[in-house]
Amino acid sequence: MMFASDNASGAHPAVMAALARANDGPAMPYGNDPATARVEALIREIFEAPRARVLLMSTGTGANALALAGLCPPWGAIYCHDIAHIEVDECNAPEFYTGGAKLSHVDGAQAMIDADALSDRLAGSGRGVVHNAQPGALSITQATERGAIYTPGDVANLAAIARRHGLPVQMDGTRFANAVAATGASPTALSHGAGVDILCLGATKCGTLAAEAVIVFEPEARPDLVWQLELRRKRAGHLYSKMRFVAAQMEAWLDGGLWLDLATHANSMAARLRAGLARAGIEVVSPPGANLTFARLPSGLHRALQDAGAAYYADPVPGDCVEARFVTSWATSEAEVDALLAACIANAA
Amino acid sequence: MMFASDNASGAHPAVMAALARANDGPAMPYGNDPATARVEALIREIFEAPRARVLLMSTGTGANALALAGLCPPWGAIYCHDIAHIEVDECNAPEFYTGGAKLSHVDGAQAMIDADALSDRLAGSGRGVVHNAQPGALSITQATERGAIYTPGDVANLAAIARRHGLPVQMDGTRFANAVAATGASPTALSHGAGVDILCLGATKCGTLAAEAVIVFEPEARPDLVWQLELRRKRAGHLYSKMRFVAAQMEAWLDGGLWLDLATHANSMAARLRAGLARAGIEVVSPPGANLTFARLPSGLHRALQDAGAAYYADPVPGDCVEARFVTSWATSEAEVDALLAACIANAA
Amino acid sequence: MMFASDNASGAHPAVMAALARANDGPAMPYGNDPATARVEALIREIFEAPRARVLLMSTGTGANALALAGLCPPWGAIYCHDIAHIEVDECNAPEFYTGGAKLSHVDGAQAMIDADALSDRLAGSGRGVVHNAQPGALSITQATERGAIYTPGDVANLAAIARRHGLPVQMDGTRFANAVAATGASPTALSHGAGVDILCLGATKCGTLAAEAVIVFEPEARPDLVWQLELRRKRAGHLYSKMRFVAAQMEAWLDGGLWLDLATHANSMAARLRAGLARAGIEVVSPPGANLTFARLPSGLHRALQDAGAAYYADPVPGDCVEARFVTSWATSEAEVDALLAACIANAA
Amino acid sequence: MMFASDNASGAHPAVMAALARANDGPAMPYGNDPATARVEALIREIFEAPRARVLLMSTGTGANALALAGLCPPWGAIYCHDIAHIEVDECNAPEFYTGGAKLSHVDGAQAMIDADALSDRLAGSGRGVVHNAQPGALSITQATERGAIYTPGDVANLAAIARRHGLPVQMDGTRFANAVAATGASPTALSHGAGVDILCLGATKCGTLAAEAVIVFEPEARPDLVWQLELRRKRAGHLYSKMRFVAAQMEAWLDGGLWLDLATHANSMAARLRAGLARAGIEVVSPPGANLTFARLPSGLHRALQDAGAAYYADPVPGDCVEARFVTSWATSEAEVDALLAACIANAA
Repeated sequence: MMFASDNASGAHPAVMAALARANDGPAMPYGNDPATARVEALIREIFEAPRARVLLMSTGTGANALALAGLCPPWGAIYCHDIAHIEVDECNAPEFYTGGAKLSHVDGAQAMIDADALSDRLAGSGRGVVHNAQPGALSITQATERGAIYTPGDVANLAAIARRHGLPVQMDGTRFANAVAATGASPTALSHGAGVDILCLGATKCGTLAAEAVIVFEPEARPDLVWQLELRRKRAGHLYSKMRFVAAQMEAWLDGGLWLDLATHANSMAARLRAGLARAGIEVVSPPGANLTFARLPSGLHRALQDAGAAYYADPVPGDCVEARFVTSWATSEAEVDALLAACIANAA
Repeated sequence: MMFASDNASGAHPAVMAALARANDGPAMPYGNDPATARVEALIREIFEAPRARVLLMSTGTGANALALAGLCPPWGAIYCHDIAHIEVDECNAPEFYTGGAKLSHVDGAQAMIDADALSDRLAGSGRGVVHNAQPGALSITQATERGAIYTPGDVANLAAIARRHGLPVQMDGTRFANAVAATGASPTALSHGAGVDILCLGATKCGTLAAEAVIVFEPEARPDLVWQLELRRKRAGHLYSKMRFVAAQMEAWLDGGLWLDLATHANSMAARLRAGLARAGIEVVSPPGANLTFARLPSGLHRALQDAGAAYYADPVPGDCVEARFVTSWATSEAEVDALLAACIANAA
Repeated sequence: MMFASDNASGAHPAVMAALARANDGPAMPYGNDPATARVEALIREIFEAPRARVLLMSTGTGANALALAGLCPPWGAIYCHDIAHIEVDECNAPEFYTGGAKLSHVDGAQAMIDADALSDRLAGSGRGVVHNAQPGALSITQATERGAIYTPGDVANLAAIARRHGLPVQMDGTRFANAVAATGASPTALSHGAGVDILCLGATKCGTLAAEAVIVFEPEARPDLVWQLELRRKRAGHLYSKMRFVAAQMEAWLDGGLWLDLATHANSMAARLRAGLARAGIEVVSPPGANLTFARLPSGLHRALQDAGAAYYADPVPGDCVEARFVTSWATSEAEVDALLAACIANAA
Repeated sequence: MMFASDNASGAHPAVMAALARANDGPAMPYGNDPATARVEALIREIFEAPRARVLLMSTGTGANALALAGLCPPWGAIYCHDIAHIEVDECNAPEFYTGGAKLSHVDGAQAMIDADALSDRLAGSGRGVVHNAQPGALSITQATERGAIYTPGDVANLAAIARRHGLPVQMDGTRFANAVAATGASPTALSHGAGVDILCLGATKCGTLAAEAVIVFEPEARPDLVWQLELRRKRAGHLYSKMRFVAAQMEAWLDGGLWLDLATHANSMAARLRAGLARAGIEVVSPPGANLTFARLPSGLHRALQDAGAAYYADPVPGDCVEARFVTSWATSEAEVDALLAACIANAA
């Protein structure tokens, strides 16, 4: 009963098989190999973005920090939600990569940036005032840390606000696959079609070993950006000599829509869990759709679930309860979900 | 005929098999898995260093920059050879990770730091003078970029000079395995036994996909160092969520002495090449031992070899010649070496 | 009618006279002069801190950023009020000097950090969790950006909370003189007596040309801190070659209690203004004590005051009003205050 | 007998008088004052550069590091002489301000960059190769740390080489005044007329308290550069609130050619010293022209001079000698020079 993180799951067999195939003979290092080229072509096709440039990375933190450093100067501010991963869980990686930019919080329910709050914040920014951090970039997490999903309209709305203030838009797409699967919107519609300049497309949590793609949709809009990102990636030690192995993972994951199949499965396991928890009288406090489920558990039940071997994170909340986070993944089985639900029912007061 | 880089080779089958085994079921992320613990234990045993702490990384540039940042403050100087990888080939990664330290060059033949030159340099350093960069760390590359190998005595000598000036010692061990194999010295004797504080042990070039180990031999000598390195690694986006896959590579590579077998093979292929070149009347200009061979080729021969499909790097040198660098690896075959030599002979004037 | 900033005033004649005296003959550079030594001795005496070390700077932004960089690592968080000068008005200087630390906001009325909010924030900090920014330092602004003044008890309370969480305490004392003058508390009681580790004592706004003192009260509590600050100061280009001229300003300002006389005057001009505004029926929205006065003015009155030549900053607020900030200084005259008040009365509806 | 540094001298009376005048009444802060505007106009006139923009600073280290950060990216290399002040005496300030750029040494006699050496170095730079630091900027020190002076032709030659490789040119003009006075060339001819993009014009060593000007000659050639420099200056804590006091110094120093009169005096005192040393049989090892004189003294004479109260820096050199550096300034008197010479003669063997 592993619900601690989608990081806890391994890699899909198709990804492992691709890795084995990639290990056949020598290949030129540092991305000068055919697999890396094929991944760029594949991403251009999937995202209907014929000029897109792709930089492969192997961690989400690295991908986010790299992309933000490409968009926001050291004296800039990156607008993000208070509990965005880049703010809370990356140990100042964005500050490190940007050379000292500031993360500026914009609130909103379920970890979604509120459009009015963003407008207000940007209206009060000190663009052109030398004493103030200069507006640098907007960062949107899709799906959010609470499992909420921005629709194409939501993204377009936020991006338009950013654009009005001259801000580029980065999307932390660690769970972008889950968002595409949940909304049925096209990858395009949820990214550059809605105004996203750089998407960090996460595959690590979604079925690979370690693979992320930083996608710059319109390189010619920012001359030198891609070359700067390449230099920044090297300088950060993220230019892999045997890049073909990262590329092979990404290619296998994207190939034939596997990425969406896996995300659909993870989402459906969350839906099954959510429905079961509701039947068991347990309050679910996060929105449906993606593969994250937050629920309010009495402390007694929480202890019983842990004793039963369920793995998940929980924070104490008032009323002798915890707020538990259950994460499902491509590897979560129906049996695993049902076992958790059975344990809930068995231990209900 | 791939002699461009040991990076061009793939991973050894035992490493691929370990990767497949590691993909069995869930595992706690971020290094809280059994394989990561086993790697630390294995390294402690191999290096006879029971208190050593190990941080896994996946690029040599990342490993070097991380280690140096742990040892040298932003206002410090890192002493290294003029053509050290950290100086020439890491796009200012050490400067980035340290927050602006300076690399200070010490010359010497075959990319080996000359002990007298180091002494002189340190004697003239401005320790305690606020205007000058403060001596920060010594970085030794083993084997060097020219294929030279420091003996245990060489390392001990340099480390003793460093110690007299209060400097910690980092070793860039991208090809440490080749050095151990070539000298027959123990891993201990070539590292902490000779005064090395942190070894960056490279496995990527030597038979894995992407795996490096930053080994801190005496953590208690520098309180907080390991914790700082962990924070720095995370902040740089190098804390892998599915760390088990990095650990599995490293474990398989070290297990049963595979690492030394592979390095021995790579070295012996270089020896075969060197001997053959000499027989063909081609001047070899680098020392024997490791898996790098630099040779002086007439330009005509160089073009012929390239036409014949030989891959290697070459720089023009006076006398209508090039200096060619041939790198052998665990995957280089005798047939491949012999084919190159045959092409040399066939195309000799 | 200059109420835009205490920065708009010049230097006190005694400071100018000291500067002229300091220009007599040669002096060793970089602080190795007698005046710099005398300033340290004087500050030790005034603050009853016999071991204190003093670094002179010439801007408040530089002083704050330097002090914070000495206390908070790049992966750390600096706890400060949402509208602290270090957050709003220093263009990411703290982020720059620290190498990428994060400023973490704690709310509270009148720009004062609320003790409960600080406790809550620190209770939820991720100390020891590698993914989270590590608690780094507490920064208190005295007087606050709204003119509020922390009593010795207030400071001690916040510092005790910080201490319980292992955090050092920095005080942005740009208007520390105003706080001492307003409370009647001793300099000691408002700083290290209440738990402040480093005070940035501001003289620039308070009667000098450009002089600030970074005071480390207990250098032996943090070995190497002072030396690191000296290196950081040099590296930032803030080690003045002709330091005697900075020292002379600071010495003259502190000598014979001039600093408190000037601050008392500035505060009393604010009190005169506040009383007059109240008599004129204008709502004052900031607390009494220091030399900052925030008042709510109808837009019509605001325009009339500007037309009359009054200089001050104002932000629009609901109800067709502005919130005006009037700053008095050592150089503000009663006549100037009375002229402003007369203009208010003349232009009231 | 103060020959330790031109930093040891005070400020010229005209500068002090200007400072006193500047203290009359309030002025808008942060450079929004008339004096700052007048300085820019004056520099445009003197340098025949009608579009030039000027940023005032107060230390040479700050000015150099700021200018270089405007020209060279974090992944860049700054080409400078091995013993340039920016390399040796600024405690990694350029690395700090640039965010981790590398200083790359080019040798040459008397601390002058050798043109052929520069060409060779740039020919071998790795522009476009992601592993290598990218060529960032050329930095020329005028006069050099050995007192050598580049002619307009020398500067133009180096700048043309830089230009061919796409490099901008910064000039560390800490003693630019001495170079203009010594050569009789126009300020234009020695700076932008010869291809310098940014000049850091030093006034601190040459007669002010603390004033430097960063001059961008052709702002439109690099859109955003000046605004970025302004943000960088603020972020570094070098935007002085009471800027009028820095401006007043610079204005008085430039006004009516005072700067060149003072430099001419300093240079002539060096010439007097040089001639006297030669008469006394003491070997002068640095070239004539500027206000620095390096001479080889027997150790016995060195000790005697020190006992006699002469202040200067000296390094031991072979042959039981020291190499002494004597620096003259605007404040050095003939009597002071003659006293040193008399002491030399009195103590000669």
